Amino acid sequence: MGKVRNVLFIMCDQLRADHLSCAGHPHLKTPAIDSLAAKGVLFPRAYVQSGVCGPSRMSYYTGRYMFSHGATWNRVPLSLREKTIGDYLRPAGIRVALAGKTHVLPDLDGLERYGIEGGSAMAALMRAGRFEELDRYDGHSPPGEESHYAAYLRKQGYNSDDPWSDYVISADGPDGPVSGWHMRNVHLPARVAEEHSETAYMTREAMHFVEDMGDRPWFLHLSYVKPHWPYMVPAPYHKMYSAKDCLPLNRDERELLDQHPVLAAYRQHDESQSFQRADAPDIVRPAYMGLIKQVDDWLGRLFEHLKKLGRFDDTLILFTADHGDFLGDHWLGEKEMFYEEAQRVPFIVYDPDPAADTTRGTIDERFVEAVDVVPTCLAALEQPANDHLVEGCSLLPLLRAGKVENWRDAVFSELDYSFREARKILKRGPRDCRAIMVRTDRWKYVWWQDFRPMLFDLANDPKELSDLGADDAHANIRREMEERMAAWLKGRKTRVTVDDAYVEARTATHKKHGILFGMW
Amino acid sequence: MGKVRNVLFIMCDQLRADHLSCAGHPHLKTPAIDSLAAKGVLFPRAYVQSGVCGPSRMSYYTGRYMFSHGATWNRVPLSLREKTIGDYLRPAGIRVALAGKTHVLPDLDGLERYGIEGGSAMAALMRAGRFEELDRYDGHSPPGEESHYAAYLRKQGYNSDDPWSDYVISADGPDGPVSGWHMRNVHLPARVAEEHSETAYMTREAMHFVEDMGDRPWFLHLSYVKPHWPYMVPAPYHKMYSAKDCLPLNRDERELLDQHPVLAAYRQHDESQSFQRADAPDIVRPAYMGLIKQVDDWLGRLFEHLKKLGRFDDTLILFTADHGDFLGDHWLGEKEMFYEEAQRVPFIVYDPDPAADTTRGTIDERFVEAVDVVPTCLAALEQPANDHLVEGCSLLPLLRAGKVENWRDAVFSELDYSFREARKILKRGPRDCRAIMVRTDRWKYVWWQDFRPMLFDLANDPKELSDLGADDAHANIRREMEERMAAWLKGRKTRVTVDDAYVEARTATHKKHGILFGMW
Repeated sequence: MGKVRNVLFIMCDQLRADHLSCAGHPHLKTPAIDSLAAKGVLFPRAYVQSGVCGPSRMSYYTGRYMFSHGATWNRVPLSLREKTIGDYLRPAGIRVALAGKTHVLPDLDGLERYGIEGGSAMAALMRAGRFEELDRYDGHSPPGEESHYAAYLRKQGYNSDDPWSDYVISADGPDGPVSGWHMRNVHLPARVAEEHSETAYMTREAMHFVEDMGDRPWFLHLSYVKPHWPYMVPAPYHKMYSAKDCLPLNRDERELLDQHPVLAAYRQHDESQSFQRADAPDIVRPAYMGLIKQVDDWLGRLFEHLKKLGRFDDTLILFTADHGDFLGDHWLGEKEMFYEEAQRVPFIVYDPDPAADTTRGTIDERFVEAVDVVPTCLAALEQPANDHLVEGCSLLPLLRAGKVENWRDAVFSELDYSFREARKILKRGPRDCRAIMVRTDRWKYVWWQDFRPMLFDLANDPKELSDLGADDAHANIRREMEERMAAWLKGRKTRVTVDDAYVEARTATHKKHGILFGMW
Repeated sequence: MGKVRNVLFIMCDQLRADHLSCAGHPHLKTPAIDSLAAKGVLFPRAYVQSGVCGPSRMSYYTGRYMFSHGATWNRVPLSLREKTIGDYLRPAGIRVALAGKTHVLPDLDGLERYGIEGGSAMAALMRAGRFEELDRYDGHSPPGEESHYAAYLRKQGYNSDDPWSDYVISADGPDGPVSGWHMRNVHLPARVAEEHSETAYMTREAMHFVEDMGDRPWFLHLSYVKPHWPYMVPAPYHKMYSAKDCLPLNRDERELLDQHPVLAAYRQHDESQSFQRADAPDIVRPAYMGLIKQVDDWLGRLFEHLKKLGRFDDTLILFTADHGDFLGDHWLGEKEMFYEEAQRVPFIVYDPDPAADTTRGTIDERFVEAVDVVPTCLAALEQPANDHLVEGCSLLPLLRAGKVENWRDAVFSELDYSFREARKILKRGPRDCRAIMVRTDRWKYVWWQDFRPMLFDLANDPKELSDLGADDAHANIRREMEERMAAWLKGRKTRVTVDDAYVEARTATHKKHGILFGMW
């Protein structure tokens, strides 16, 4: 055990906070992840900055809220101006690598604007959010933009132009192959062998990287595309769970009365319609659990590998997700809406430093946000905080039982639904689709642009079944939440071209520069 | 008279809205500027986005609020990400040139980050806010960073290493030269001849440019450094006005009771202390008026020149300032605080299009903001609105008596005083110095980070002498103003890498790309 020299930042895609045994799932056992929690700290109240892949990840990578980094949905490129963990660590000689998914889209306008030439090393870094892509793999890829995984599959004998579609997310049905895009099929085993599946492949990539690096310092973002849809899972995981093992559905008929307009629109989306079927959750949830179980098994192998290499002595390990999955809760599929099932994520940090010994195996109920990952890594690696840009807080004082005053008492998340069908249903323009959530210990409040707000009393309604957004008796609470939101908005970090030291060095120094204004 | 092909964007530095005869000044006659108002529209309620040069100008050039463009004070570079009028017009074949001051600081971090090579044409544009610098002239310049003006002066016989300090802002005192940095001296005539002064020189630069351009389209930013301090003015303008010609001082002893903490700190600054002297306003204001009179005389020559060249038929002309000057009002010097004397600026637009004939010579009391300049120019030149970035509104419908629904009923301005002595006096950190103003028809409200707000009732206290920021009877008004501010903050345009057409083309199109999520 010793000082942090490396960081392993593990992300699952679309993994709910409640689908781990260390988080209380009664039937899904995740011993590897649990073992990490036993050596580190589990933060059960960790929230993402947006309930959808792209903006959530950009907040993880930049340490900035969605409003600040501006990549407001999956199809919005991250501005080249935004600095990521790659910008911060590479100059310190730390290799910053990616195995798996990032959802970073290249800022083509920026690349052209600054004349950054295609094919250059800078262009590659700039296009990739400043990660060195060992193997970038976002799941579905247009032909020609495949990761190495497609070639790997072909080498294993999966002969196809698109082995992912034909094997990884397909199953053998009674009349030939059927697709995992159709949820009704996901009780069948994938046509790919488990050892050739996405999770297996990407874990091995990470294991090779860590081994290759030897004692040289690194930051590895191991980013699984699972348990994200398509929910097709290879044998034997496809039949490990059944409907009786699933968490009870969190939905109630009264949620469909006086629905919030945006929520009503989302409930018309395909994914919500499908999950509203009585049979869907019981087909999909076991497959989803199988995918998680498989991740856990591979993490067990990865952790053994790290131990063997001595990397548990000098590697900070974070385990989290970019958002959750409704799986039919609240009559919804997918994510984006502000319920706990989508916004709250697993969050475990293992810190090898002996200073963290007193917190090992504990559960810390304080609020954590995705924006905390960058400052935590910078602090652990003793790098400059860059806090003129970074909007999160280092968790190191919490991990090392340091003095922590005034820890945050609220978390924030945002949404831009302009790319979604809901916008068309509601007949709104591309700039009129914003929402902001604030949750405190007791309340969750959502401001919706041009619609009434939502409000949930988490003390008396932890399942969020009763929306008090239009309830007269709660006008004061809504106002208080609006005030919190306004204070948060006013604190956004927009002075991005200079840091605080620059300001300090130039405060009231005009006389030194021969500018004597104001003298009589 | 015809279609707009060129834009002449004239800015004075530190010119108050009330120091023009067309705006009602009883003794300072400005016939050239008045003649522009007679042919165009005078907007007497025009406000800057920040009451200090740098951030105000960056809002004029980008069409974005300070919170959005992030160049929050004079010493903060504009991020290369921010697009300016130069980015918008150059691709249309319009030459975008600067004669005079911009206060743009190069984003050195950005230039290095994107590998933009020094000496390249791109580097020159990027360093200069995307203006082609005919002659950039910010007044005081460190040796080696002088504009062409220094060489010009030497050629006229002003032999000095620093002819600006030794001639332009100096006068002959009884015991030798005295400096205009000291306000006590500004009743004396400058040692530079009027025809060699800054205002004369820069007007001639503009006249040459317009003549050289012939019929090719252009956007010229003619940006005078006057009547900004040092207030030294050449003969005969130094003695045209005396104390009896000045507007009455707007200050009252009761303003010094229960002072707002930030205001109290600003009143300790040198410039405020100097202007609090009984003799200072009567020395400085006549010089300030002389500087304005000189600008007006040169604008008369420039306008004659434009007429002779036919450019009044196809040139949109805007006349404004980056902020005002307290000149002792409210016991303050300089600007930055949110009183009308600093925030409200002259604003005249002349539109040659016959569609504007019905509004010529009128006064339009609707609220205008600095961010309106970019969209007005884009609309007049029939260029794309870029309204995913631009936060202002085109004034063209107002100028051309078009249908205007829901014009803004409030204006906003911001301050970051972290570089000022006031921060040290108040013992605050570099990120704790924000303020936001909202003014409506009746109220002016200022939110101060960690201090009580300010509130003025402009209907009953148009001189802003009575701060109601702590008055119990006005709690509801303050709340209403806070709500307006919150709504404004939520509307900031942060999705900067893609435009609305991109969003429209990609809304709910996943199925087209073979992504079939949500299907049963």
